[in-house]
Amino acid sequence: MDCATLLAARTGNMTVSAIRELLKVVSQPGMISLAGGIPAPESFPLELLEHLYRTVLEKHGAAALQYGASEGFTPFRQALVGHLEPLGIRVIAEDILTSSGSQGMLDALGMVLLSKGDKVAVESPTYLGALQAFAPYEPRYLTIETDEDGLVPEALEAALRRESVKFLYLVPTFQNPTGRTLSLERRTAVADLIRRHDVLLVEDDPYSALRYRGDPLPSLKSLAPEQVVYLGTLSKVLAPGLRVGYCVAPQSLRKWLVIAKQGIDLHTGSLSQALAAEYLSGGHLQKHLPTIISLYRPRQEAMLEALERFFPPGFRWSRPQGGMFIWAEGPPGLDMTEVYPWAVARNVAFVPGRYFYAEPDRGIETLRLNYTMADEKSLARAIAILGEVLAA
Amino acid sequence: MDCATLLAARTGNMTVSAIRELLKVVSQPGMISLAGGIPAPESFPLELLEHLYRTVLEKHGAAALQYGASEGFTPFRQALVGHLEPLGIRVIAEDILTSSGSQGMLDALGMVLLSKGDKVAVESPTYLGALQAFAPYEPRYLTIETDEDGLVPEALEAALRRESVKFLYLVPTFQNPTGRTLSLERRTAVADLIRRHDVLLVEDDPYSALRYRGDPLPSLKSLAPEQVVYLGTLSKVLAPGLRVGYCVAPQSLRKWLVIAKQGIDLHTGSLSQALAAEYLSGGHLQKHLPTIISLYRPRQEAMLEALERFFPPGFRWSRPQGGMFIWAEGPPGLDMTEVYPWAVARNVAFVPGRYFYAEPDRGIETLRLNYTMADEKSLARAIAILGEVLAA
Repeated sequence: MDCATLLAARTGNMTVSAIRELLKVVSQPGMISLAGGIPAPESFPLELLEHLYRTVLEKHGAAALQYGASEGFTPFRQALVGHLEPLGIRVIAEDILTSSGSQGMLDALGMVLLSKGDKVAVESPTYLGALQAFAPYEPRYLTIETDEDGLVPEALEAALRRESVKFLYLVPTFQNPTGRTLSLERRTAVADLIRRHDVLLVEDDPYSALRYRGDPLPSLKSLAPEQVVYLGTLSKVLAPGLRVGYCVAPQSLRKWLVIAKQGIDLHTGSLSQALAAEYLSGGHLQKHLPTIISLYRPRQEAMLEALERFFPPGFRWSRPQGGMFIWAEGPPGLDMTEVYPWAVARNVAFVPGRYFYAEPDRGIETLRLNYTMADEKSLARAIAILGEVLAA
Repeated sequence: MDCATLLAARTGNMTVSAIRELLKVVSQPGMISLAGGIPAPESFPLELLEHLYRTVLEKHGAAALQYGASEGFTPFRQALVGHLEPLGIRVIAEDILTSSGSQGMLDALGMVLLSKGDKVAVESPTYLGALQAFAPYEPRYLTIETDEDGLVPEALEAALRRESVKFLYLVPTFQNPTGRTLSLERRTAVADLIRRHDVLLVEDDPYSALRYRGDPLPSLKSLAPEQVVYLGTLSKVLAPGLRVGYCVAPQSLRKWLVIAKQGIDLHTGSLSQALAAEYLSGGHLQKHLPTIISLYRPRQEAMLEALERFFPPGFRWSRPQGGMFIWAEGPPGLDMTEVYPWAVARNVAFVPGRYFYAEPDRGIETLRLNYTMADEKSLARAIAILGEVLAA
């Protein structure tokens, strides 16, 4: 039968990710991909996980394989208490919910909070996966300007005066796609603003542990605990294939997220949560994180040096202190979707930046460059080729 | 802040499961629970899983821990081809989508198919988790009568003549909550009906492998391949904590389920899928299934014998050939929610059957009895106590 006539009204808003289509070329032999957004496979602690698996079965036995609470696996929630403390997030285990990656919690937040036409304030550009998670709930977007220091507080204030929003969604540290970080001054300003306007903020924080230089900044959750839903994940510091994320939300929201999650997937995988619990509580994250950083830092440096050397005049790019991405901007009018096939023809893939904007026709001259999936030499070669293609 | 004012319109439909509240007493010491719906922990192949984990890492390395396709982990989809063939479901790997338990696919189906007010036809009583998965999408229910042989085709036909439905949701084999199985004649009749009325059927099949007596029946998917979305899971035959389910849907629906899943959780856990793939392709399910059955069959027999012996006159119950549940009905007017606290006071928990009906005030005299979580002796004692409480 043809199910096209059976689709819900909302399903029309759920479009095939253009990036997904672009990325189909990435697996071609010889391609150097700057297009991905995924961790290096060599960053996964394979042997450690085998050891953790045995520990988990000894410690929890069948409980690690059984149905569990929608709120999360207790030992994982307990381990997260200590993990969150250095970020200035002081909570007890019961305050924490676990999710199937942070994507799972973005979906639950959309389900619980968004009626059709509700407004969500987002950075411009913003994380595409969040737009995809919210899309089925049919919100409208209020886009807030950003610059090198992240979200512009004056732009946020003007928007909040003009319109009422269901929530503000931010990736304040080493943002995807720009790599930019909200400065300390701006964090304070944003915290003040959301308190003053009584606005809920969703702080999505997958990258802050991947810091290569500079001092850590306080989370927005620590600056405005009552106003912020904090989302974390083990995807960038352990392994994304476990699909383990977590969330600290105001109590009045948390209970609805739990009910939503019961319907969505009952609960997050017990084995994955048990492995993550052991990784945190056994001190393995602290031991393994320097290995991940020592893998990514030189790759980022190699890319930044190559950009300096090979990119044509008229280009600017971000110089993030961590994370997985560099954001480049060409001269106005240069359309990166037109450049893309020429780069692919020379075996280099990237993502045109326009796909990260909630509004159409923004950022046509931008591109997102990822440096976690290739070694320094390949990265330098890819940027050299891209420089030639862009200069042509 | 108080998020109550921020909730979406739909969120009011998402109620706390009454069962969840009831089950809070289950963990009290000394309680014999006939209330659960979960596999016996001693049915999990713990040692085998440790072995499979090593095999998975040898075979797939980092790929078992990396981000994966929303459609599913290829080796798992390939292994499912052979697994589905004996059920008369002849597909290629690309026809199969994987999900975070079958619950994850129920949610995706609701998201993709249901606009507010759309009608879903369900058995009366039906699986509560499906009602919870569909609730956020605000459907109305068309309830179809059932008897000892499952859904009554004449009732379905009358309903389909009267109303148009988005889909029909069925658990045709060893249903939750009744344990009942749709007879062969009725399967043929239902397949004819959905073809004739061009209706989509969601066949949820978590229990059919747990057959203790009698011959297997053909899946509805095999009788009307074009009209049926088939949902399967490893939760009852491997371990629910892995959260691994799968689905075979018409192609015109499948592509939308993939897009929905990207937003919901990106993809199902890679490690879980890799373990499940190895469990199937290595022939371990075939070897382990008899162990699970030899655990449950005597428990079911013990419960059936005890019902015969201890339940007061005026009660009837199902005698399923497999699965995890027996459904009992008392004399009209006897309200099992009133009996419940008396049973709990004597350390026996069950679930009043009314919670499994989409309409209020149905089935007050019914109860669901699970026999997978206690040994034969405890089951007999629990039924004896329950018989006394019911006779009082």
